[in-house]
Amino acid sequence: MPGNSFGTFFKITTWGESHGRGIGVVIDGCPSKIPLDEEIIQSMLDKRRPGKFAASTKRKEPDRAIIMSGAFEGMTTGTPVMIMIENKDADSKAYEPLADLFRPGHGDITYMAKYGIRDWRGGGRASARETAARVAAGAVAAAILKKENIKIYAYTVELGGVKAKARDFDEVGRNIFFCPDADAAKKMEKRVLDVKKRGDSIGGIVEIVVKGAGPGLGEPVFDKLDADLAKGLMSIGAVKGIEIGAGFDAAKKLGSENNDPITPDGFLTNNAGGILAGISNGDEIVVRVAVKPIPSISIEQQTIDGSKAQRTLSIKGRHDIAAIPRINVVCESMVAIVLADHLLRQNAVSLT
Amino acid sequence: MPGNSFGTFFKITTWGESHGRGIGVVIDGCPSKIPLDEEIIQSMLDKRRPGKFAASTKRKEPDRAIIMSGAFEGMTTGTPVMIMIENKDADSKAYEPLADLFRPGHGDITYMAKYGIRDWRGGGRASARETAARVAAGAVAAAILKKENIKIYAYTVELGGVKAKARDFDEVGRNIFFCPDADAAKKMEKRVLDVKKRGDSIGGIVEIVVKGAGPGLGEPVFDKLDADLAKGLMSIGAVKGIEIGAGFDAAKKLGSENNDPITPDGFLTNNAGGILAGISNGDEIVVRVAVKPIPSISIEQQTIDGSKAQRTLSIKGRHDIAAIPRINVVCESMVAIVLADHLLRQNAVSLT
Amino acid sequence: MPGNSFGTFFKITTWGESHGRGIGVVIDGCPSKIPLDEEIIQSMLDKRRPGKFAASTKRKEPDRAIIMSGAFEGMTTGTPVMIMIENKDADSKAYEPLADLFRPGHGDITYMAKYGIRDWRGGGRASARETAARVAAGAVAAAILKKENIKIYAYTVELGGVKAKARDFDEVGRNIFFCPDADAAKKMEKRVLDVKKRGDSIGGIVEIVVKGAGPGLGEPVFDKLDADLAKGLMSIGAVKGIEIGAGFDAAKKLGSENNDPITPDGFLTNNAGGILAGISNGDEIVVRVAVKPIPSISIEQQTIDGSKAQRTLSIKGRHDIAAIPRINVVCESMVAIVLADHLLRQNAVSLT
Amino acid sequence: MPGNSFGTFFKITTWGESHGRGIGVVIDGCPSKIPLDEEIIQSMLDKRRPGKFAASTKRKEPDRAIIMSGAFEGMTTGTPVMIMIENKDADSKAYEPLADLFRPGHGDITYMAKYGIRDWRGGGRASARETAARVAAGAVAAAILKKENIKIYAYTVELGGVKAKARDFDEVGRNIFFCPDADAAKKMEKRVLDVKKRGDSIGGIVEIVVKGAGPGLGEPVFDKLDADLAKGLMSIGAVKGIEIGAGFDAAKKLGSENNDPITPDGFLTNNAGGILAGISNGDEIVVRVAVKPIPSISIEQQTIDGSKAQRTLSIKGRHDIAAIPRINVVCESMVAIVLADHLLRQNAVSLT
Repeated sequence: MPGNSFGTFFKITTWGESHGRGIGVVIDGCPSKIPLDEEIIQSMLDKRRPGKFAASTKRKEPDRAIIMSGAFEGMTTGTPVMIMIENKDADSKAYEPLADLFRPGHGDITYMAKYGIRDWRGGGRASARETAARVAAGAVAAAILKKENIKIYAYTVELGGVKAKARDFDEVGRNIFFCPDADAAKKMEKRVLDVKKRGDSIGGIVEIVVKGAGPGLGEPVFDKLDADLAKGLMSIGAVKGIEIGAGFDAAKKLGSENNDPITPDGFLTNNAGGILAGISNGDEIVVRVAVKPIPSISIEQQTIDGSKAQRTLSIKGRHDIAAIPRINVVCESMVAIVLADHLLRQNAVSLT
Repeated sequence: MPGNSFGTFFKITTWGESHGRGIGVVIDGCPSKIPLDEEIIQSMLDKRRPGKFAASTKRKEPDRAIIMSGAFEGMTTGTPVMIMIENKDADSKAYEPLADLFRPGHGDITYMAKYGIRDWRGGGRASARETAARVAAGAVAAAILKKENIKIYAYTVELGGVKAKARDFDEVGRNIFFCPDADAAKKMEKRVLDVKKRGDSIGGIVEIVVKGAGPGLGEPVFDKLDADLAKGLMSIGAVKGIEIGAGFDAAKKLGSENNDPITPDGFLTNNAGGILAGISNGDEIVVRVAVKPIPSISIEQQTIDGSKAQRTLSIKGRHDIAAIPRINVVCESMVAIVLADHLLRQNAVSLT
Repeated sequence: MPGNSFGTFFKITTWGESHGRGIGVVIDGCPSKIPLDEEIIQSMLDKRRPGKFAASTKRKEPDRAIIMSGAFEGMTTGTPVMIMIENKDADSKAYEPLADLFRPGHGDITYMAKYGIRDWRGGGRASARETAARVAAGAVAAAILKKENIKIYAYTVELGGVKAKARDFDEVGRNIFFCPDADAAKKMEKRVLDVKKRGDSIGGIVEIVVKGAGPGLGEPVFDKLDADLAKGLMSIGAVKGIEIGAGFDAAKKLGSENNDPITPDGFLTNNAGGILAGISNGDEIVVRVAVKPIPSISIEQQTIDGSKAQRTLSIKGRHDIAAIPRINVVCESMVAIVLADHLLRQNAVSLT
Repeated sequence: MPGNSFGTFFKITTWGESHGRGIGVVIDGCPSKIPLDEEIIQSMLDKRRPGKFAASTKRKEPDRAIIMSGAFEGMTTGTPVMIMIENKDADSKAYEPLADLFRPGHGDITYMAKYGIRDWRGGGRASARETAARVAAGAVAAAILKKENIKIYAYTVELGGVKAKARDFDEVGRNIFFCPDADAAKKMEKRVLDVKKRGDSIGGIVEIVVKGAGPGLGEPVFDKLDADLAKGLMSIGAVKGIEIGAGFDAAKKLGSENNDPITPDGFLTNNAGGILAGISNGDEIVVRVAVKPIPSISIEQQTIDGSKAQRTLSIKGRHDIAAIPRINVVCESMVAIVLADHLLRQNAVSLT
């Protein structure tokens, strides 16, 4: 089975390459009569646009979302919603010197090994540009969740080793790093500028919190809510680790510390991250993802070419220094898609 | 879509509850002519049997695997392989006092919220006993991988805060914790006995390494190899975190440190954990999972009952102190299942 | 993807061979709190038992359904329902002379071509015995449909060239052919006895009618209700043709004859067979299937053996003369499974 | 699960409405390095273009296929192939009088019942225009089959009651009905003109033959080759019946007539239509589909409007008199898609 679909009932299928004619997504399974227009999608897409900061790529795609099908007079019709984003500012010439080189940390070498052919322009299908299609789908998922008063927050809790201590949600929108800690945001800025100067790149950690999801979402024993969140988030290119609730800290705790005591008013703690035995328990759902540094750096690196000869390369293209904060809305979107899917799945078996 | 199947081409569907008539798995998609008999499955199942140590449950299930279909004269036939394990030593009486209580850290409360009915005997479907079916399927997956000389190692790298420093694979089979560090194993033993005395429980970290997998496994952009590993492993009850390669450490690294330089003889480092852009790169695949402490403890805990009244409980049943090391072979099995599935998927598109 | 699962939300996976340890089915996606016990399943299974008539095989399986999981105190729990039927009266010796022969009209030759190995005992996986698992699943589907007051009738409208003219539903249960026309049933009996004497076999046509299904079931453009019915019914071994409503007669009609006029009280005719554009229209759903004659006959036939040498064979085993009427409940079951699946699917997107 | 995808490994997902911005298909699972350009797709699409005959709609869509992704320098890359066809000649005004009417024989009434909202312009998603996306996908499937020397023929064997007696494949391309019998084609022409004069419409029967498919395709017990063909073909709007090989005639035959004798050189007859127990047997695969008359007729019909009031309507739009012969290439495409899918599935389990 091919791998470009995600979800079962709210099912998305993405297509497109970085420098081809465009990218897009077909959403099959969106219920009818959900309010949907291009502005709703655009406002989500705008969160992943570059250009706000020195850390960002200089590629300037307008990234205009076009709804090609599935909506009529501002409402979904129950038929597939296809959203397309045309590629306008692709500059393939910058990639010509790389056409026969495998960039370290990128998928160049594995795509070639797997398919025996490779669209090297801008990283082809393996480009982070593919995530714009996920965000477009995420906007539709969010429109469904809105009906159920479910809200998702994605914010930066670590960047280049700088950790956020506070969790001030109001602060998130005020700084360019979507960081819930104003002091940490300032240190992050200093760190980014320093790394940029050296031609290097950095990683970090994004935390995603879901508020308003009732209990009962998740389909044991394999399509558990945490399992599907893990898959959805790990499928984002730069992600190398996932935690639910206490996560890796749970490995160090005693059972008496890690269990969340239950009271008539709810749980006293939330080490579970809102999920027990793969099913949401009504508490906040808490997930964290580890984001690796952007592999494209101008520092010289060792690699090979298509004929396996040793080469060096230094990448001068238009690249971000960090996937954060542009990746945050991608994480938010994947979580929205997983929740919308599980909402419909739970709905299916709720016979009256 | 219901959630008790995993995989696409090598597809497993598990069934059964802890104290029902039995548990089992249907494997659909196993190629024909793979050598298979009950001994092959049994030897894998025996790795998750309790009783080797004070840390383990006293439930003594013989766990005899019966191949009900799909094999003929010692070979698979290409038809579904159903493997059944009957429940013999279920003691539901011990659970009667818990029938109306929601055990903290367990799925009791979420199963009730989701389904409105609950087989409370032994945790029902949410019991760790369900993982025996995964291990039976893992044995079949391993039989396929064997044909391709792919081997999987799962071992304990942290238990109750005690970390393994060495990675001596020969040592793994010599100690009861499947730990690759003899010194650490001794400290783990001390730690476990201490915790047991206090009626508490502990968690830890399991590392899984795959040797011999060639490049090309994984189906971007959603069914990436790391994404499917994350889902498979996160779907195991006690797992709360997943890392690939450098994992959460990658979030702290510079791009110049994290990128694995490429030479004609392979990669110089393996921060990628053997996976680039969701496709295996031919290097060792490295995954780690965070395992939470067993939630059943004899220390008194706060909870509620079915009518939402505040209650306390202290669990005296036959429980493990730690999911490790019995969970190790479950992790190994899930990794084997993911790899077997991706091997067949890659095979499908390899037209000659 | 392997092919032993059917349905998406009410998803069944069957396993087992004719002369192996047993056969069975895992039903994943059955909603919780549906009344279910072994008697409900048994009464459906009893409809496909042989022995009522000279036309039937002499194999006498008690076919006792055992619910292995998914039900607790007479109700489904939302977890997988596994139903098993053990093989008790398998007589493999009768098949030994056939072990190296490919029976004409059977799957012997194609299973060997596909899998390179073959469980020749009783036809293995290709045996009609496999359909008992479908009937067990059909009983569970029917239990769901019952909640919605949906009822399915399957009856014989043609056997060995003898056609039923009447559609007297009360008559169906009164004759051994499940024929809605008492006169035709008598002629069918005569025809069957005549064919039996000559060592030959016959086919016929089964009609299935669904009453009580509301409008809105079916998922265009591929999982249309008629498309899924066609697949489910065509997947039954002996079926070679499917018609919905007017079926092949529609090919001969004018548009003005074939269109069903719409009035405030419903449709004036039902050439559509209750399905328009793949979605149920609230009228009776009408399907017919063409059933080929049983391929096992005692008349001598030409065939080859495993080494491709020309051979003849005459099959003397315990075989039916016609798949009808035992196949009727199998058709009924597949229709029930398709409807239960589409009911849940429609439920999923019915947000309030 | 939504219903706009078909296939498992060669998986297509179609999108689009008759009068929206366009229609299209994402093909996920197309192997890499298959030669593919827009001309290959266009030549297949041109077979379903109207305008060759009085029987056809006057809507003149150029139907230019645009490959949006998945191909690079004339070859597929293994990533999703998205093919788009823009809507250029949509005239929604003609449909305005029908906006509140349910056309008999159309999906208007069932789409409204299911979704509670309806894009009435040109039939929306239920329009036959949707099949252009299937044909685009069929062209890609055919490109894969070409590598294996598999060829598919779809031709008209009955139209408005006129039957083709001959099966002269060379004749098929010579007449406007794709009929393998020159005499019958002449009679069909007369019949069509006569029906057109009366403002009525007619149906017919299409036969599809596959040559060159080896044995072993099909995945019992549900995804049998005939079952998937039945589903794929029944999912085409106008199809009301399916037959494999002898089909409904098999219901009238004796076993001794219907069984195909086997010789070292192959089967002596082909009542099986090339499929035994759901697996191809290496003989020609033969399928027939019953096509209902086009429901849009200018003869006055009885119907209701959105408020359930009795109304009459007479449809004057640009409509075909018969779905045949434009539907022929749609049937051919669905068969190609099923075969490509099963080819990859069989490939997956063919371990060396």
